[in-house]
Amino acid sequence: MTDHPPPAAGFVLTLACADRPGIVAGVSRALAEAGGDIRGAQQFGDEDTGRFFMRVVATLPPDGEAAVRAALGTLGAEFGMRWRLSARGTPRRVLLLASRFDHCLADLLYRWRTGELRIEPVGVVSNHPRGSYPALDFGSVPFHHLPVGADNRAEQEAAVWRLFQDSGAEFAVLARYMQVLSDDLSAKLAGRCINIHHSFLPGFKGARPYHQAHARGVKLIGATAHFVTADLDEGPIIEQDVERISHADSPADLIRKGRDIERRVLAQAVRMFCEDRILLDGVRTVVFGD
Amino acid sequence: MTDHPPPAAGFVLTLACADRPGIVAGVSRALAEAGGDIRGAQQFGDEDTGRFFMRVVATLPPDGEAAVRAALGTLGAEFGMRWRLSARGTPRRVLLLASRFDHCLADLLYRWRTGELRIEPVGVVSNHPRGSYPALDFGSVPFHHLPVGADNRAEQEAAVWRLFQDSGAEFAVLARYMQVLSDDLSAKLAGRCINIHHSFLPGFKGARPYHQAHARGVKLIGATAHFVTADLDEGPIIEQDVERISHADSPADLIRKGRDIERRVLAQAVRMFCEDRILLDGVRTVVFGD
Amino acid sequence: MTDHPPPAAGFVLTLACADRPGIVAGVSRALAEAGGDIRGAQQFGDEDTGRFFMRVVATLPPDGEAAVRAALGTLGAEFGMRWRLSARGTPRRVLLLASRFDHCLADLLYRWRTGELRIEPVGVVSNHPRGSYPALDFGSVPFHHLPVGADNRAEQEAAVWRLFQDSGAEFAVLARYMQVLSDDLSAKLAGRCINIHHSFLPGFKGARPYHQAHARGVKLIGATAHFVTADLDEGPIIEQDVERISHADSPADLIRKGRDIERRVLAQAVRMFCEDRILLDGVRTVVFGD
Amino acid sequence: MTDHPPPAAGFVLTLACADRPGIVAGVSRALAEAGGDIRGAQQFGDEDTGRFFMRVVATLPPDGEAAVRAALGTLGAEFGMRWRLSARGTPRRVLLLASRFDHCLADLLYRWRTGELRIEPVGVVSNHPRGSYPALDFGSVPFHHLPVGADNRAEQEAAVWRLFQDSGAEFAVLARYMQVLSDDLSAKLAGRCINIHHSFLPGFKGARPYHQAHARGVKLIGATAHFVTADLDEGPIIEQDVERISHADSPADLIRKGRDIERRVLAQAVRMFCEDRILLDGVRTVVFGD
Repeated sequence: MTDHPPPAAGFVLTLACADRPGIVAGVSRALAEAGGDIRGAQQFGDEDTGRFFMRVVATLPPDGEAAVRAALGTLGAEFGMRWRLSARGTPRRVLLLASRFDHCLADLLYRWRTGELRIEPVGVVSNHPRGSYPALDFGSVPFHHLPVGADNRAEQEAAVWRLFQDSGAEFAVLARYMQVLSDDLSAKLAGRCINIHHSFLPGFKGARPYHQAHARGVKLIGATAHFVTADLDEGPIIEQDVERISHADSPADLIRKGRDIERRVLAQAVRMFCEDRILLDGVRTVVFGD
Repeated sequence: MTDHPPPAAGFVLTLACADRPGIVAGVSRALAEAGGDIRGAQQFGDEDTGRFFMRVVATLPPDGEAAVRAALGTLGAEFGMRWRLSARGTPRRVLLLASRFDHCLADLLYRWRTGELRIEPVGVVSNHPRGSYPALDFGSVPFHHLPVGADNRAEQEAAVWRLFQDSGAEFAVLARYMQVLSDDLSAKLAGRCINIHHSFLPGFKGARPYHQAHARGVKLIGATAHFVTADLDEGPIIEQDVERISHADSPADLIRKGRDIERRVLAQAVRMFCEDRILLDGVRTVVFGD
Repeated sequence: MTDHPPPAAGFVLTLACADRPGIVAGVSRALAEAGGDIRGAQQFGDEDTGRFFMRVVATLPPDGEAAVRAALGTLGAEFGMRWRLSARGTPRRVLLLASRFDHCLADLLYRWRTGELRIEPVGVVSNHPRGSYPALDFGSVPFHHLPVGADNRAEQEAAVWRLFQDSGAEFAVLARYMQVLSDDLSAKLAGRCINIHHSFLPGFKGARPYHQAHARGVKLIGATAHFVTADLDEGPIIEQDVERISHADSPADLIRKGRDIERRVLAQAVRMFCEDRILLDGVRTVVFGD
Repeated sequence: MTDHPPPAAGFVLTLACADRPGIVAGVSRALAEAGGDIRGAQQFGDEDTGRFFMRVVATLPPDGEAAVRAALGTLGAEFGMRWRLSARGTPRRVLLLASRFDHCLADLLYRWRTGELRIEPVGVVSNHPRGSYPALDFGSVPFHHLPVGADNRAEQEAAVWRLFQDSGAEFAVLARYMQVLSDDLSAKLAGRCINIHHSFLPGFKGARPYHQAHARGVKLIGATAHFVTADLDEGPIIEQDVERISHADSPADLIRKGRDIERRVLAQAVRMFCEDRILLDGVRTVVFGD
């Protein structure tokens, strides 16, 4: 017998809807009536698109989650909201896709093992065989060699899609996966497939951006993490960063420096996704930072 | 006769209080009932200090401000809040203090003239005469030469304080004002006096930090904007930034590079203050970014 | 009567030529034989273009300069060098061109007055009248209002060119001068006219790059200083920098943040030019940093 | 039979000596007479310490290395030089020391495997057992568990020193090795032992710097790579970098963000060492960048 209440648990609530008065009041009342305590929150109304976005970190008593879900069901219908309530810190199931260059894949696996990224890899897909990654320890994560060529693209993508569904993946990461997804697969994965582009978009598109950067003589190179859309280089941007270079850097140096930026930018985008910080706003993203 | 309602005006509301459930719900209900529309907001509960902070940008109908003030009066008493509601974009009255080096002063004046900073300088105080600034155009801003020495410090500070009060200044900026304020004046200006420290605190304190940085052989130098407290180098930090240096940089080079960082960091801190983005949280600050 | 030799003076020597063995040996021997002492130097051979670049800071005795010039005359002919020897710290004569936005102009003038930039402005040219800059103090620098329209472009450019020559300008700076130079004037000013592009090239070209950046939803914006060529956005890049932005930044916020980057990037490029740190390498630049 | 000469090979020459005229001339003549071709070089004279530093990348014909070594033997004696000539790109033998946190160790091993860092790990030393690193694949690199306590410090350090010598290590890296080296071992490894300090020195010294940073409310955190000296926090600094943080970051967040900076800063310092870019200049370093 004890006087202490059962411990409150942490939740993250995100929502998006057309902007109009009363959204924050409605949501915060629903949380308060369920015994919730808001620990931090951010709201943003986009004057261009007329959309409103909200992210709340709150604690809820043991019976609070059901009450909040019920209230949000009503409120969500009234305001036409897309909302998501999830236990804070729950690992998000992810399917990782890679090709020959494995620095991003290795980095994500390392950050997963250290607990730095709250992901749960449910599979690694590559168009190269397992032997291409002698130094990588996939542990119990299933590896799928799905080679792809001009004649089997549709079948290979169908296999990827089946894997995504069967594994219960919540999102996919193209960790330097050097295949362009079809419009069909891009559409199926809309808003839940993150790509790392090895360039500071909209700077250098197409092949070999570091060689392009060297030829142009730029003084900074960068990388871009974005959601995949049918138009590969035009998906909503999640995160970008740059690194300073000089005349003395060869294309090989740029590629080496670029690897570091790519790792950092992709890991940051994945972390933002896992913490429910990214909300789609048309062709752009709202990213609620720390 | 017209169907259009009078235009809604923009307001910024900030508040701080001890953390407990219901704050956001109470505030957002007050805003909603007054016809307000939240355009953006941020909340943060500090688990260390047990304080809760909130900043809201909202539009209000013409009669909304009074209603919100009334509701916040009640709510504020209930929750023990410190709150502030102000029309968005209203210039904040500022008293600028400077000494021999005028790069920060010149920069603030320039950003005021371009409208980049929403400040209204109500006076410039210097312990050097007007003629020390031949290239600066103070326009209609009164210039006050208040020399200071060992024997008149109390009188000089009393004059500064009178100027602050008489001019209706809302805050003061020490734009490389090289005099240490007394504990008494620091206390009077608590939370409304911003200093730029020409070092990346807690790195190099005391005199000639760039010479110290050169002697130590560091690879980055920085600057720190903070609120003034009795202990000059220990006030709550608002903003910091750094710049890369190399072995080839002399102390003179560091001073030159430092000037740029100082300008940038101070201007950023002033802008954050004017936009009501800074809230005091004990010895630290909560800065709600863009 | 004294035993002390007359003081040695500082010089900067820069040179570029086709790469082949013996360049550094020849140049350093010439300096040593003239009694010079190398204080710092950098060399770079570009494997793509086959060009070799060198910058030396050296002290020379009073009669040393003539000796070095003679030796470099011979050596330069042998190696097909372009070289330049100049007293270190001599202000470089510059013609400043501006349009409506004066933040870059104001910044350059301020850095000139403080001695931070070793320039000597020999004139300010604007297509707007003097009254457009009420807060700017040009001191004794002549102001030239040279309006330009569809029907007088050639005449206006001829006037600019005459001013450049008559004033003895060594280089020109387009400090947000919003007119595209003709191919003819660009050619005349090749390698000695610096422009600030209000975008992170090759990112957003054309008009209103900050609006383009906002529409695309990028997470960093930047600016680019480059030499002017006939193709406005494609001149050799001297310096670039970026600033982080967020979904909450409006185009107006981007323009404000962009002003800061533009000032910083342009001032850095001008400083590099004045210190003879920039050497043209085809469509790229070699910039020998501090 | 062929017309082609045997291919020239790349070398890096570094040297340091008291500054006086003729050093560059002497060295470049020695290289030219041996058939060398300078591809890039940097020189720096420190006016504070009176020391001169030089780094040259040059190609040499097959018989050129012996000739250069002979000439530098003579020249080096004349000028009192410390010099080093090595084949460019030869992996440098390194002994890695780690404790419980393995993010830096994992990062170095990964960059070794990808060829990004030209190192050859000759051993991993830890005061924790092999089983502490289940996810790390050391391949053929010997692992040495050398536990240390109050009663066996001298013996453990003697074992480390024997390993260093027996393995032919050229340098050691303390990859978050949480033991303070004795003055004796520090002296033996002077100039060839790199430590990563999990703070932006001279900011937060001592234990738990990220907790100190959080308590102080700083807005940027950083890391510092430096050579080990008897005074742990005061060794010559090689590289530093920072990351932006906010009020919302807990100490745990700072530790996570700090890991990234530590990895990046340490890897950069190791790369600079392997490329012979770091020269000791008293309590500071000269680092000849790319």
